[in-house]
Formats: sequence, C-alpha cells, structure tokens
Amino acid sequence: MSIEEKLKVIPLGGLGEIGKNITAIEYKEEIIVIDCGAAFPDEEMYGVDLIIPDVTYLLNNKEKVKGIFITHGHEDHIGSLPYILKQINVPVYGSKLTLGIIEKKLKDSNLKFEYKLNVVAPGNIIKLENLAIEFIRTTHSIADSCAIAIHTPLGTILHTGDFKIDYTPIDGLFMDLQRISEIGKEGVLLLMADSTNAERGGHTISEKSIGETLNKIFSKADGRVIVATFASNIHRMQQIINSSIKHGRKVAFSGRSMESISEVARELGYLHIPDDFVIEVDEIAGMDNDKVTIVTTGSQGEPMAGLARIAFSTHKKIKVEPKDLFIISASPIPGNEKLISRVINQLFKKGADVIYEALEEVHVSGHAFREELKLMHRLVKPKYFIPIHGEYRHLKHHKDLAESLGMEENKIFILENGSVFEATKDNAKLCGKVKTGNILVDGLGVGDVGNIVLRDRRHLAQEGMVTIVVAIERESYTLISGPDVITRGFVYVKESEELIGKVKEVAKKELEYALENQIIEWYLLKSNMKRAVETLIYEKTKRRPTILPIIMEI
Amino acid sequence: MSIEEKLKVIPLGGLGEIGKNITAIEYKEEIIVIDCGAAFPDEEMYGVDLIIPDVTYLLNNKEKVKGIFITHGHEDHIGSLPYILKQINVPVYGSKLTLGIIEKKLKDSNLKFEYKLNVVAPGNIIKLENLAIEFIRTTHSIADSCAIAIHTPLGTILHTGDFKIDYTPIDGLFMDLQRISEIGKEGVLLLMADSTNAERGGHTISEKSIGETLNKIFSKADGRVIVATFASNIHRMQQIINSSIKHGRKVAFSGRSMESISEVARELGYLHIPDDFVIEVDEIAGMDNDKVTIVTTGSQGEPMAGLARIAFSTHKKIKVEPKDLFIISASPIPGNEKLISRVINQLFKKGADVIYEALEEVHVSGHAFREELKLMHRLVKPKYFIPIHGEYRHLKHHKDLAESLGMEENKIFILENGSVFEATKDNAKLCGKVKTGNILVDGLGVGDVGNIVLRDRRHLAQEGMVTIVVAIERESYTLISGPDVITRGFVYVKESEELIGKVKEVAKKELEYALENQIIEWYLLKSNMKRAVETLIYEKTKRRPTILPIIMEI
Repeated sequence: MSIEEKLKVIPLGGLGEIGKNITAIEYKEEIIVIDCGAAFPDEEMYGVDLIIPDVTYLLNNKEKVKGIFITHGHEDHIGSLPYILKQINVPVYGSKLTLGIIEKKLKDSNLKFEYKLNVVAPGNIIKLENLAIEFIRTTHSIADSCAIAIHTPLGTILHTGDFKIDYTPIDGLFMDLQRISEIGKEGVLLLMADSTNAERGGHTISEKSIGETLNKIFSKADGRVIVATFASNIHRMQQIINSSIKHGRKVAFSGRSMESISEVARELGYLHIPDDFVIEVDEIAGMDNDKVTIVTTGSQGEPMAGLARIAFSTHKKIKVEPKDLFIISASPIPGNEKLISRVINQLFKKGADVIYEALEEVHVSGHAFREELKLMHRLVKPKYFIPIHGEYRHLKHHKDLAESLGMEENKIFILENGSVFEATKDNAKLCGKVKTGNILVDGLGVGDVGNIVLRDRRHLAQEGMVTIVVAIERESYTLISGPDVITRGFVYVKESEELIGKVKEVAKKELEYALENQIIEWYLLKSNMKRAVETLIYEKTKRRPTILPIIMEI
Repeated sequence: MSIEEKLKVIPLGGLGEIGKNITAIEYKEEIIVIDCGAAFPDEEMYGVDLIIPDVTYLLNNKEKVKGIFITHGHEDHIGSLPYILKQINVPVYGSKLTLGIIEKKLKDSNLKFEYKLNVVAPGNIIKLENLAIEFIRTTHSIADSCAIAIHTPLGTILHTGDFKIDYTPIDGLFMDLQRISEIGKEGVLLLMADSTNAERGGHTISEKSIGETLNKIFSKADGRVIVATFASNIHRMQQIINSSIKHGRKVAFSGRSMESISEVARELGYLHIPDDFVIEVDEIAGMDNDKVTIVTTGSQGEPMAGLARIAFSTHKKIKVEPKDLFIISASPIPGNEKLISRVINQLFKKGADVIYEALEEVHVSGHAFREELKLMHRLVKPKYFIPIHGEYRHLKHHKDLAESLGMEENKIFILENGSVFEATKDNAKLCGKVKTGNILVDGLGVGDVGNIVLRDRRHLAQEGMVTIVVAIERESYTLISGPDVITRGFVYVKESEELIGKVKEVAKKELEYALENQIIEWYLLKSNMKRAVETLIYEKTKRRPTILPIIMEI
C-alpha cells in the first residue's frame, strides 16, 4: 500500500454548533459530501436571514467532488443546497421524501440550471470508483431518514445522520438495526454519530405516544383544534390527521411550508389523508367549529408565521374564537422561549385554551438519548469515533460516553469545522485545517455582510447614531454651513435640545480650531471632531452612539 | 358606612410580566406601596439597561403615600427604589437583610438626600392611621423574605410576595404558616399570591437538597471548585461554604455583587463563615488548588460577569486550569440559554469540567409549585383573589387553580398593570385604569429612550444605514456638491461599489428633477430622494436599511 492511501474526513460545518451540517469524505481522486445544511442566525446577527458554510475546500477540489449524499430533509441538512449547487453542480442523492422536499426547495429558489436528483432506496448502494455509498434506514423526527455507510478500501465509515431509535415508528418502517449490526460485525473503521442529546440520560419516547396524548386532548375539545408543529414532521402531521379523522374533524393546512411539505408528502405517499378530509382554510368559516382541525406553522413563536399571526390578529383568514384549543406540539429551540411565551399569553388573553410542553406531553425529541447512543456504539464497535452534530459540550459528553463503554481516548477525535481527520491503514490523526466558516445571507446578498458590518449593526442597535454634517469651502478653507446634527435611535431630540446644542458647539469648536491651524487632512479633522463629541456625549449620558462626521467640500 | 369607604388595589408593575413588582394599596387618605422593583430589558430593547415603572399615579397622590413596604431583597422587588425615592422620599420598611441590601444599593447610587429605612422584624406591625401593615416570615431563594398582611377597616389583604414552602430552610427559620393560617381563620378579604410557577405540578424541592448534591460533587473534586450562582441567594452561598469547610477548602468571593452581598450578609449575621476560611481572590494563586472554592457571579452567562470572563480569559485574576470543576448553580432565565451554553462550551474546551442543571440537581426553584399554592389558598380562604407576579399564562393558570379549589370565578380578578381593583364592604370590581408603563433607563438617561428611539435602533440593527448628503446653493437653487453616500452596517462598501454608484445616480436624478421643477420644500425633496433610493436598494438587495437624506443649504 503506497503512502498516498489516505482517507480524509473533513467536516465543513455542524461541529461546535447545532446546524449547517456538511462533511467531505475524500479518498484519492474522489470526494463525496454528506449533507449540505444551513444554520439560522442567533439574535446578535442582526438582519442575517441564513448562514451557509464556506465550501472553499470543495471549490478548490471541484473536479474530485462526485456527489452530495443527504441523510434527511431537515433544513440543517439541506438548507445550503440552492447556494452550493450554484457553485458545484454535482448529483444529489437521497431517499424519496428527502429529494421531494429538496426538489420543491430548488424550484422555489429559481435556479437557472439543470440539477441532478437521484432517489436512492434505503438498502441501496451507489458505487463510485473507489467509494461505495450505502443508505441505511433510520428513525428521526422526519420520515425517510437514513444513515450512510461509506465503504472505502481502508474500511467502512458509518455516518448516522440525525437519529433516534423508535421501536414503534408511525410508518411502521423500523430503523435497520440489523444492517448496522452486520456492518459493525464486518468491522467499522470510523463511526460518526449524532451528539445532539448526548447530555440526556435514558431513552427517547416513541413518536407514537404523542398520538395517545392527542387523542385524549381531541376527545375533550368542543371548538376548533389548532395545532402548531414543524412542517417537516410528517409523522406528527399524520397523527394529528389520525386523531382528527377519529373525532370527525376535517383538516386544513395553513402556512407556506406546512402547505408545501404536506403536499409533497401526500404526493409521494408519506402522508395519508382521504381527500374528503382535507379542507382549504377558506372553507373553515362555513363549518361547525368542532369539525375542524387546523395544522399551522409557527411552533417557535416566529412573529411572521401562522401561529403568531393568529394570536395577534394579523392572520388574514383565521381569527381566535372563544372555544379554540391550541396545541403547540414542539419544544422551544433555545433562544425562542420568549417569543413562544408571548404567543401563549396572547392566546390565553383572547380566551382560547392552549396546551404546550409544560402542561402535557405533546412533543418528543428526534435525537437519541444516552441509552440509544450506547446501543449504536455497541452494535458498531468502531475503530475510531468522531462525535458529530453538536456544540462542544455535546461532543465532549458523547466522547465521555464512548470512553465509558471502554473505547480508548486516543481513538476518539473531537473535530472542529475544517479539521482534517486522516486515516491510513494503520493509523489515524488530525492533520491541520482547511478554510471554512460562516457565509451570511441577508436578502439577496450572499457573503456581503460580515463581521465589520455586523459590528456596526450591533453598535447602531445599542445606542443609535449621531451624524454631524458640515460644509467647508475648499478654496478659502472656511466653514460655510453646519454643523448640523441628525440622530437616529439616540434620544428623543425634542427633549434633548440642550444636549444637541452642546454637540453642535463642541463640533464647531473643534472645526474652527482645525481650520485656523490649517489641519487640512480631512480624516484628522473628522477624528478630532468625533472624539470631542464622543467625550461630551459619554459624560452627559454614559452612552456611546455611533458618531458619523461628514464633511462636504464645496 | 359612607359611600367613600373604598379600598383600592392598583398594581403599577409585575402583572402580565415577570419583574418590576410594585403595587399601591389605597384607603381614604393613605396609600402604601408594596415592593418597588425593576425589570431587565429583553433582547429587542437595544441599549436599555433597566426598566422601571411609571409611577405617575403615586406622584399625583404624593401626599397620601405613607411608605414603601418591601417583601424581600431581589432586584425585581427593590431595583427601582433609587429612582422612585428621588421623586417620593417616603420611609422604606423591610426585614433586616432586605434593608441591608437596599442600603448598599442606595449608597452606590449616590443619592443626594437622606432616606429613611426602617427595619421591621417578621411578626411586627406598622400602624398608620387606618392601615396596619404586618410582616410575616416566608421562605424563598433569598433569606429574610416576608409576606405582608395589610389590615384595613374593610378587611385584611394578604400579599404573599415571592415564596416557596421550604420545610427545611437552611437558616432554620420556617415560614410562619401558623400566622397565615390564623389570619385566614379570622377572615381574609383579598389574597394576592405569587403565580410564577402556577404551571408546575407538585412541590418544590427544599434548598437543603442542594447541600447534599454539593457535598457529593465536592468529595470528588481534586482541583479548584468554582461555583456560579445568584449573589442574592445567601442560603445557596451558605451551603457552598459548608461544603467547602467540610472538604477543607477556603472560599473566595468574586464579582461585584457577590462581594457586596456576601459582605452585607456576613455583617448582618445571615451568612456564617469563620474569618480564616475567607480568602481574597489575590490569595488563590499561592494555594493548593484542592483547597480553594471560588464563588462567582455570571450564572446566566452574562458576558461581563465573572463566569464568562473566566471562561473567555478576560478575567484579570482567575484563569481556567485543567482540573477546575465549575458548577453552575442556577437555572437559565428564559432568553439566556445561548449565553450560558457559550460559556459551558468554552470551559469544556479549556479542559475544565462543568456541572449544570441538565446533569445534576444543582438548583431548585424559589417559587411555589401548584401543591404549595393550593396549601396557601386552603389556609387563607380569601373572599377575593388576585393572582400576581407572572405573565398572563401564569395568572390564568393560577386563576384556574383557585377555581379548581372551589372558588367562584367572579371572585377572582386578573389585573393588568394600572388596573384598579376596588372593594367596598359588600362588593369588589375593576374600575378603569391609571397611567402606568415602562420607563427605560439607558446610561444616565431615565425616560429619554422610548418607542420611537427603540424602533429606530431596531431598524438600524436589522439592515444598517445609508446616509445621502448633498449641498445646495440657496440662492441659485443648484446642486453644488454631492450626493455623497456614507453607510454603516449595510454592506462591505468595497465589494458594493457598483450599488453605491447606482444609489448616487438615483439620488442625483431625483434631486435634479426637483431642482428643475422648483420643488422648494426640502422635506418633499428629501422624501422623494429617500423613496427612490429605498426602491433601488430593495430591488437590488431585498434589504431595507435606514435611509437618511441630508441637505445642506449653502
């Protein structure tokens, strides 16, 4: 075996963070990419709509990239596809539902080129020159999710994707533990496994238990039932449908993603509802309230999504009515607690009843808890292990879990985005890093908002802005107009006339001094003026607004 | 009894929100105020440091206000005192520790007048002309907390303050359930009770259980133990001290509020630690790591507080060392989850171990769960009930709880801030509202930041700002300089030269058209220019920055 026989694993996103999952696996002249996710901005990333991974490494090795293999249809696994395919248009592989969701997404983004989507049935294998990629059925909070085994000349890599072990899945399609076990028995070089819930002891509850809770709740409801949940959770949707049918209710889907995903899932045979049980939102008005279920988006309290619009009376078609029963069938994603609470308060104020996680078991997690992770490790018995999908705390706890099962510490690698894991026949180690990072999407702009722009936005947000404008005659070097002061987000100007007056005074003094002393470098003049005004404002208010001095040369 | 014999209860804060608790109780020529709290801004209140209540009602009835009675020393019950006393300097009554904390706070705010603080021992009664105010010991997550009974000619009001029922409090001072029971037996007109945990079933766990967990953790630690908790939780601090002494560790207090409250609590005899077990942070370096405990602020992940500074290596005196064991002895307040997670990740990355609520029972709640609330209702058996301290959802669940115990719905009143509850001998009802609201404190400014300023900050935060400056000659009505375009927080200008060029073009075109057509109203000219630029930018980028057109007249 020559020295070149190396297998590289390079996560370009999803490590040290929740979201934006994407990993490159490279052997000789072949690179395959597992998942192509996006992340959502946190509240300090003002104005940013979406975060996608920096895939410079793939662009630099474009000719090697043979395909993108998707484990399941969640945004943090598919959300960057419209952006990445624009740059590297390789075939995309995934299960039927996954590709159905992707196709819808790509259509919506109006790509001006042909893309190649290849449906793979779980159990099937895609053979490349050296690599063979096998899809293995798993269970998760979206239907048709898969783990991916990559068979290489140096051994097999098993990438779990997101998973939980649900012994009673809604669609009856069990996770293929037997195949995973078989691969484990044959020998696995490297396990890459979901760490999201590595801190949570015990075992997740089956999705099926939600159905029982829903039935109990539905049986007591005598007005409309309005359920907010993730649009992608087809199994949850199915259970809401089942409870509705059982209790003689017809179902309306409301919200863009809810309508679009339910449509795809019905077309592809993943969501089952007789046609005469589906109604349009427009038809609700004509029906008895206790014959209606509405499934809507907005379970995270997002101000522009269905649930919040209904709560705050900005929904065009659905108004809260007294006997309405709302069910929020989701957990708050950290950071969203206040948004959700605002919606709950508002619904209660309007006289509706609201059921949420704190009160009833209306949500279960889609990510394996510790006992499930242990089963995965025991079945796979890998030579090496890389915990994936998680912040550092989750990766660290997953590492500790593997050690508690007897794995040696030096066989476990905690990677960062961009870390290069390199395995040879006999050895494995981390070898430096490749370029990676966050590309921020704001409106149509991809990557034109970065740290400096965000820093400015944060500064503007904290204390607003004070603009000072003066006009200076170039020739005579005299002040001919100003200083004028315009503020935004600083103080109520009417109540702060005195302060603004002082700002003008101080700016004028600096200016006159500079002009008298022939300080002809505008940038010097500006920075003097800025400093003087800053000092004054901080003294008077203990605030530091953005100061923007503008000099017009006439 | 004449028609004037009315008892009014007016919450000026703390209803429909968590925080800023303050209630006025009025009978004839006397008003007493229960608590005087502040609230902390949510993440959309950019740049705001603190929220205090609008007390216009008290100012308008200044001569009636006889005193402020404080239930306990938490910020949401005392935080507005420095601001409110400036406007209404009446005596403040509270238990010894409560007033100790208040005194420290008032000293720190450099008030330029004498204030009157009167220590009241639990069990004592302050007699005014018509009202008699009785302090009753309770248990809560701060020592020396009290409920307050207001005895009036129309009956007794019992205001619980914040409470939990802890049968084994650390200081051995039990909640005076017997007195509460006695008052209940005599007859209570109105109960006002803490609703914070009205959604949580069962009973809180005793603070004492934390001591056992801490002992277990301490017995395994072989480096330093660093505990982050709320500075005001004296009992928690005492238990950390007890575990430290038991395991031969000396204790350093770090962080401004931790140092100051531990000092007050020791002085007043609420915190017990032998002098030779207290060390300064400076002394840590010279000691064996397994002989040191550090108690620090920052349990909410606040970037400027002790814990985050230690984690991110910006703490001047404490650096993370490999065997350090961190304990975060607090629950995340909703909205702080991400901040805390960031700190946890960082500590793990630095090789320390971290224990937090998800892993071990290192925190208990200080607010009564449902079974405790039921006990309170059963003991007090009030004629009327007002749930207090909570968002609408909590008030509503507390109301439902009271009904489930047999109370009639029309005897329960959910109030908003400013609602006037009016009781006569035979009746009770809501009678309109008084002025109330949030006064925002930003730096030294109190009330000079309001909705418009915040709206501007939000807008600036989302998409930044584009300033367009032109100079126009007044006489000849011609453009003599500009348009210049300056942006902040919008895009990287270098990479967007083309866009900025187009903005200038469009602005110039609008301007020239206006000048040619003698549109001499500057505001019209500005708004035309603004609209044209807005349209252009939205088309090109799908963003809506703040556009600020400035015209200099020369």
